[in-house]
Amino acid sequence: MKIGILGGGQLARMLALAGYPLGLEFIVLCPSTEACAAPVSEHLLAGFDDNEALKQLADKADVITYEFENVPAEAVEFLSQHNTVYPPPLALATGRDRLKEKTLFNKLGINTASFADITDLPSLQQAVNKIGLPAILKTRTEGYDGKGQFVLRSPQDIEPAWQSLNGVTAILEGFVNFEREVSIIAVRSCTGEMAFYPLSENVHRGGILRLSNSLANDPMQSKAETYATQLLEHLDYVGVLAIEFFQKDNELLVNEYAPRVHNSGHWTIEGAHTSQFENHLRAILGLPLGSTALNSNAAMINLIGEIPESADILKYPDTHLHLYGKSPREGRKVGHITLLDNDKDSLLERVKLLS
Amino acid sequence: MKIGILGGGQLARMLALAGYPLGLEFIVLCPSTEACAAPVSEHLLAGFDDNEALKQLADKADVITYEFENVPAEAVEFLSQHNTVYPPPLALATGRDRLKEKTLFNKLGINTASFADITDLPSLQQAVNKIGLPAILKTRTEGYDGKGQFVLRSPQDIEPAWQSLNGVTAILEGFVNFEREVSIIAVRSCTGEMAFYPLSENVHRGGILRLSNSLANDPMQSKAETYATQLLEHLDYVGVLAIEFFQKDNELLVNEYAPRVHNSGHWTIEGAHTSQFENHLRAILGLPLGSTALNSNAAMINLIGEIPESADILKYPDTHLHLYGKSPREGRKVGHITLLDNDKDSLLERVKLLS
Repeated sequence: MKIGILGGGQLARMLALAGYPLGLEFIVLCPSTEACAAPVSEHLLAGFDDNEALKQLADKADVITYEFENVPAEAVEFLSQHNTVYPPPLALATGRDRLKEKTLFNKLGINTASFADITDLPSLQQAVNKIGLPAILKTRTEGYDGKGQFVLRSPQDIEPAWQSLNGVTAILEGFVNFEREVSIIAVRSCTGEMAFYPLSENVHRGGILRLSNSLANDPMQSKAETYATQLLEHLDYVGVLAIEFFQKDNELLVNEYAPRVHNSGHWTIEGAHTSQFENHLRAILGLPLGSTALNSNAAMINLIGEIPESADILKYPDTHLHLYGKSPREGRKVGHITLLDNDKDSLLERVKLLS
Repeated sequence: MKIGILGGGQLARMLALAGYPLGLEFIVLCPSTEACAAPVSEHLLAGFDDNEALKQLADKADVITYEFENVPAEAVEFLSQHNTVYPPPLALATGRDRLKEKTLFNKLGINTASFADITDLPSLQQAVNKIGLPAILKTRTEGYDGKGQFVLRSPQDIEPAWQSLNGVTAILEGFVNFEREVSIIAVRSCTGEMAFYPLSENVHRGGILRLSNSLANDPMQSKAETYATQLLEHLDYVGVLAIEFFQKDNELLVNEYAPRVHNSGHWTIEGAHTSQFENHLRAILGLPLGSTALNSNAAMINLIGEIPESADILKYPDTHLHLYGKSPREGRKVGHITLLDNDKDSLLERVKLLS
């Protein structure tokens, strides 16, 4: 079986590394000559708007998936005419549009921060009156890792923020004074089977995920699983999906979901019985899902902007290095480190030492 | 860093899969168009006697290793003139010759079955008189997985066995009525650092490894480590090395060693903190060795001759499938399964179900 992947970044690379042991092969379509997945797959070097390359991908692969949610809707539409594409295009279309996404969650009875549709300056001013300040103006589509986001703290910020959007449609979101951020990695097979990983507690800085901890028996686990089940079933979802939440007063407010394997689930490679990457492949192939149980408490530290000396990481016990084969540049995720420890306190001490 | 590997079979494939997370790249030299490692490496399709290809390998790689011990001595000699080759050629030359290998062990004070050098029919007859029957006639070089071995049960077997060798030099080994077979996977870095995995208890049938169990606290662990230390230091060894033993009456008799990652260590991928493949790479690069501690009791079942339906394996919890991308044929290792279980009895029950 050959898996086709739209995008050839680190997620495609880790999918391929997880898939070879299952006897799978990989072909990626990626416009970058430096695609991280290229050394472990057949690489179609082409743009996502290149229908000839897309047709080749559809012809050569047995099933198609993608590694990022900003893949053009037209490419997915085109591929869907020639092959099976998982996760389903509806999940992609909804997830890439913050307005549709949050509207869906509210429709499912799942809370979000208050939000409003912003189409022009008057609608932004009206939304600020209703939601209050501080609030965050976010483009409806295309933003990730904090890009396309503007924090409004005072009325003076309103007009410049709107100007900087350059007429792009947006939403205004109320500021949530959360206690912590958590995410759940969920997976649903094309057979309907579902599984959920233990919650990750996440720390972002500058809009980029820095750190995830997954500790046994998180008190919010059951609530997060209930929400994830509702979403997966509503979308008739197939594959791995991540939902990010803000926690406040024993409540979970959804921030967003990502219809793909997710940075806050990288710890599953060593930390869980089956990694999120392997389970994504099992799900899109209709294979039985693997156990999502913890091997031990786990933590993941992102490597951003610079690559450490391998020896400085590998000298620590049960500390696992994952480099993506990228050349470093500011703000770029070049790898991650996973730490395992049965003892929570010792794990958190070790994280401090390395982060 | 780019690692060059002589041979492109499943061991090279698993080395590469373990090495990408460390940011490494791979180039393999292998004469087979169906090399298992080809999808995850640059593949030089050439014979081991092709000096031009060997030179290319030496030029492109930062360090060179091999995945099987029958690589021609000339190839290693040639490569050594142009690059660093680990494990050291002495380990290869000794390990591929049963007479030199057993002589070395005895010199180190480590017991083996009794053995004798066989160069002609009279020397074979003389050896039988000394060692007794049953005994095993083995070619000095080239044999693996039971190939090139003849069991002599009665004096009538002597002449036909000698004839079937076709004049190749051999050794005669006394038959050991062992209680069990165990192996140790040992690793020594080019810095001199050493580490040892928990013993594997192995079951062979038809000369091919079928099953390995690695259970906590094997009573022979410390003796095996002492022997391995002596061998590694004597050979000034670098990389992973496996030693196979027969156990009889609380004694370990060495059967043979393999100067490479080894089938009886495949369970380390999920069963140990660091896999034998990653530790081999760390060793030849002078990186700190990773912990060899068990994650839990582990068992490995070889898949030989046919490929099972993935779903029939993956439906079991904490059961890990490893296919090598080979087309099946009789007696061929096409993959393996690893099972993990904290409970020994439950592990051995699960092994029965699948083997």
